[in-house]
Amino acid sequence: MSEHLDELRGKLDAINIHMLKLLNERAEIAREIGEIKEKQGIPKFDPIREGTMLDELTKLNPGPFKDDAVKHIFKEIFKASLDLQIEDHTLQLLVSRKKQPENTLIDIKGISVGGTSPVLVAGPCSVESYEQLRTVAAALKEAGVKVMRGGAFKPRTSPYDFQGLGIDGLRMLKEVADEYGLATISEIVHPNHIELAEKYIDVIQIGARNMQNFELLKAAGQAKIPVLLKRGIAATLEEFVHAAEYIVVHGNSQVMLIERGIRTYEKWTRNTLDISAVPLLKQETHLPVLVDVTHSTGRKDVYYLLRLF
Amino acid sequence: MSEHLDELRGKLDAINIHMLKLLNERAEIAREIGEIKEKQGIPKFDPIREGTMLDELTKLNPGPFKDDAVKHIFKEIFKASLDLQIEDHTLQLLVSRKKQPENTLIDIKGISVGGTSPVLVAGPCSVESYEQLRTVAAALKEAGVKVMRGGAFKPRTSPYDFQGLGIDGLRMLKEVADEYGLATISEIVHPNHIELAEKYIDVIQIGARNMQNFELLKAAGQAKIPVLLKRGIAATLEEFVHAAEYIVVHGNSQVMLIERGIRTYEKWTRNTLDISAVPLLKQETHLPVLVDVTHSTGRKDVYYLLRLF
Amino acid sequence: MSEHLDELRGKLDAINIHMLKLLNERAEIAREIGEIKEKQGIPKFDPIREGTMLDELTKLNPGPFKDDAVKHIFKEIFKASLDLQIEDHTLQLLVSRKKQPENTLIDIKGISVGGTSPVLVAGPCSVESYEQLRTVAAALKEAGVKVMRGGAFKPRTSPYDFQGLGIDGLRMLKEVADEYGLATISEIVHPNHIELAEKYIDVIQIGARNMQNFELLKAAGQAKIPVLLKRGIAATLEEFVHAAEYIVVHGNSQVMLIERGIRTYEKWTRNTLDISAVPLLKQETHLPVLVDVTHSTGRKDVYYLLRLF
Amino acid sequence: MSEHLDELRGKLDAINIHMLKLLNERAEIAREIGEIKEKQGIPKFDPIREGTMLDELTKLNPGPFKDDAVKHIFKEIFKASLDLQIEDHTLQLLVSRKKQPENTLIDIKGISVGGTSPVLVAGPCSVESYEQLRTVAAALKEAGVKVMRGGAFKPRTSPYDFQGLGIDGLRMLKEVADEYGLATISEIVHPNHIELAEKYIDVIQIGARNMQNFELLKAAGQAKIPVLLKRGIAATLEEFVHAAEYIVVHGNSQVMLIERGIRTYEKWTRNTLDISAVPLLKQETHLPVLVDVTHSTGRKDVYYLLRLF
Repeated sequence: MSEHLDELRGKLDAINIHMLKLLNERAEIAREIGEIKEKQGIPKFDPIREGTMLDELTKLNPGPFKDDAVKHIFKEIFKASLDLQIEDHTLQLLVSRKKQPENTLIDIKGISVGGTSPVLVAGPCSVESYEQLRTVAAALKEAGVKVMRGGAFKPRTSPYDFQGLGIDGLRMLKEVADEYGLATISEIVHPNHIELAEKYIDVIQIGARNMQNFELLKAAGQAKIPVLLKRGIAATLEEFVHAAEYIVVHGNSQVMLIERGIRTYEKWTRNTLDISAVPLLKQETHLPVLVDVTHSTGRKDVYYLLRLF
Repeated sequence: MSEHLDELRGKLDAINIHMLKLLNERAEIAREIGEIKEKQGIPKFDPIREGTMLDELTKLNPGPFKDDAVKHIFKEIFKASLDLQIEDHTLQLLVSRKKQPENTLIDIKGISVGGTSPVLVAGPCSVESYEQLRTVAAALKEAGVKVMRGGAFKPRTSPYDFQGLGIDGLRMLKEVADEYGLATISEIVHPNHIELAEKYIDVIQIGARNMQNFELLKAAGQAKIPVLLKRGIAATLEEFVHAAEYIVVHGNSQVMLIERGIRTYEKWTRNTLDISAVPLLKQETHLPVLVDVTHSTGRKDVYYLLRLF
Repeated sequence: MSEHLDELRGKLDAINIHMLKLLNERAEIAREIGEIKEKQGIPKFDPIREGTMLDELTKLNPGPFKDDAVKHIFKEIFKASLDLQIEDHTLQLLVSRKKQPENTLIDIKGISVGGTSPVLVAGPCSVESYEQLRTVAAALKEAGVKVMRGGAFKPRTSPYDFQGLGIDGLRMLKEVADEYGLATISEIVHPNHIELAEKYIDVIQIGARNMQNFELLKAAGQAKIPVLLKRGIAATLEEFVHAAEYIVVHGNSQVMLIERGIRTYEKWTRNTLDISAVPLLKQETHLPVLVDVTHSTGRKDVYYLLRLF
Repeated sequence: MSEHLDELRGKLDAINIHMLKLLNERAEIAREIGEIKEKQGIPKFDPIREGTMLDELTKLNPGPFKDDAVKHIFKEIFKASLDLQIEDHTLQLLVSRKKQPENTLIDIKGISVGGTSPVLVAGPCSVESYEQLRTVAAALKEAGVKVMRGGAFKPRTSPYDFQGLGIDGLRMLKEVADEYGLATISEIVHPNHIELAEKYIDVIQIGARNMQNFELLKAAGQAKIPVLLKRGIAATLEEFVHAAEYIVVHGNSQVMLIERGIRTYEKWTRNTLDISAVPLLKQETHLPVLVDVTHSTGRKDVYYLLRLF
């Protein structure tokens, strides 16, 4: 019996190898077609042609595979061929670790982010007054924290909530940070404000609600200072990585990612910190990854010490 | 240019057809292997053998497909072959509309569920007293509602919450329902209580928390009365359909499904009624599908009139 | 025994009424404080003062209420007082049905939206060519659909995906719509593009990814044409309503809401259509509410006929 | 101006203190009422009486608080009073750290779980053969892992998937574990199988799908061996803690909790490991808390080293 099994497995292996060859021949042809389409400016993905091919194949399908199974397998093959064409074109995402195996190191006023030494960022939700900022800055300095965050433009759920001090807030932040020798991070919400940011702060933050505000991402891609990109409130990691790519492809390779919790049904925390995002983002991209414990849990009584290996 | 495109497409089509042939030959062999394994009692899914095959294929891969793409496509082929073996065995899900194109009609004391006339079910969350039940029963009768629900065994989040009147509750329900000529539905939570249910009520309800309590599903599969299966609090439709299959495959084809909202982040409603579940379940299965608006929204001020077509 | 119960209940009622009086006196004082703060430009919410009051109260708490319970109740009282101050200021949300009981009716080239007759909107995901637009427009006209949608600026997850034809797309849309006598809807993604929109299209669409792009909402608030606001991918209804408020408070009362499904774990549909959102939004706001079945389910085989009452 | 503010704040404080006194008097009376109800066997929560009280209060409400605000505050007061009555009765959850400040230590064949030294558990998803178990057991022993897990009763989504070897599996697990001096954990799915478990294994596992199978929890409460309770697929922490309470209140205080990821929209991991659950569960309960990284991520390439402090 077992001999018969071995014989059948041998046949299977032979078919696999034959199919591998055909698959790659197919891919070469698809690539040629892609190049022609590229030159003619026609979209590579052609759902009508795919539909016709699938109909043809199911018409010819002798079984035992059901038509649905045949369709499913060929769809995967079509998709892989298309991916190959897209891959040729874009090579790979610029943020991908396959594209750049070594970590991106970002220098914020002499502080290196993305290497082996951890970096702490702290500061008030909103910039409110010089007094407030000086109290915080003094405490940060004493605690050895070198990067101060503070919101000047506050994206708020309600139009009636305090929207931040705006440019005045940025100015105050800069003044106090300079006094205490701290670097600064502040959120920017309008594509027209990038130059303003370059003047007053050291790092542009793009908030969770704006993670897929592509016009803002493109503008941040033209900034000369680093960008801290927060994961969207319910963004997938796939979407997060692509949002970072928008910034990099538009010219700014100084991008840091920050996991800040995702929206789930759980009520004991404000958001659910998706801790697995950290090793996955480190693995898939070469960008520095930070964790925002405050916003993710919404609690003062939860702390972590996390080490990846 | 366009001619060259046509020529390339012709080549592509030829390869597709060649691959279709190989795929089906492969499937035949996989099926034979499956039968041998079946006889020997070895599991059909063999991840180690699959791993070896994938390693072999990537070693031989000439490109342009990346190894990952090759692995991905072959995994899909392996999976389709395995599905085919499983399909041979189970044919199809018994609850599937492919298996039985016509609607399952369930008779509850002369009321037909699953056909074209809508059926309303109403009643108190918990059975509390004769007085309560009689008040409700009279109101239902007047409103033309013929099926009364009432909880006797209450699965409660906290062990300190009222757990229902148990058997006494079932008895009270039966007595009052008989007085008013109503049919009854009540939840059963222990596999040992099926006989009890057959004695006192007309339909066994399996609650959302027990949708994947497979021992209870198997027991309900041996009941002689219909089962109303609630979708789990965060169950996928895939899981829901398979939970119904557990009951049917254990002998009871009288199963009704009920969409009762799923757990999401939204706070204005207790659960999010997944209305698309209704047409999808009707399309994929031949079972009657009900909607529980009360539990899904947790509000008295929301009503729907829904008609599917 | 029952008499004693009645006596105790009488006492309870008396305390309730006494507390009601104190609560309202307290509210009057809080309101006065709010007005002073308003004049002085200090934020009304003062977490430090609240903390001190709570500490004081728990210090004085004789029981039997645990300190946590005392804190919880007083936090609710503080919050209600603060809400009262905010309410005074904003009166109520402008979009609220309490503020305006009658439905907002929006006129799109003679088609009234928000009243009793249903309005259908259809059209291609992206504007691609004149030929495509004319084929669609002719079909819509034949089917009696009077509003055509078509994307010219496409917010796409990947920077390498087709980003739309931009201004050219808007021009093409206008030209074809004019030929066929249709009204048009198209998405705008940059706050600087509002004037452009006014020139070419009849309704500005703000997409799900931009629902909390507040700078875009503010700009749309200055548009002279209606805005169709899509619910964010994982936005709560609370956030959705407030996003609409941003547009209205910035000057544009012509806002339509559209439920397009929310992100959940379910995989048989692309998004989960939150059908309960429709009656809830109609109840809480006076704005027209549309449903996007295509994007929510991501399937061609699911249809609904929904009537609210 | 500021003096006037101080004066108003003084008045506010006086009202707060007055209300604190009334609240506690009210609580005493509510408690007395609760005791009477307790003796009479009537449920303490009386929604109709609450409704009447709220109607009365809104009728008498002079403002400026809106009726809704009055209702909301009083509902919170009613709820706190009810909680107090329930608290009196149950004192507190038995699993609560307020009830027992020191950690529960569980002894599994001489291995202490719940203290400061971490404990690793590993083993196959399903028990398949002696050969498989011996290979795993030898590897575990070599790696210093002292507790082996292995599934004999497998709750599977589809009734056609391998359901485990059942009792034979438990026997095999015991035999091999004894040979290698390992402790064992295995899942039990039927309330009638507790005695069986006591005979063959060292720890009963209750799986995610059965976290709210209260009949199984009650049965596990009568077991003489420890229970490892997995968090439900989409269970809140509140529900998880109460599920543990079911076991403890039925007599078995040897309960360990295990976070295994929750169901979210994210697709790069099978489940989203809710890491914040670990410190929160340690804080709220005195039970040992484990983390299942394998099931939460569904990936072999993600590891954590987590230290709580």
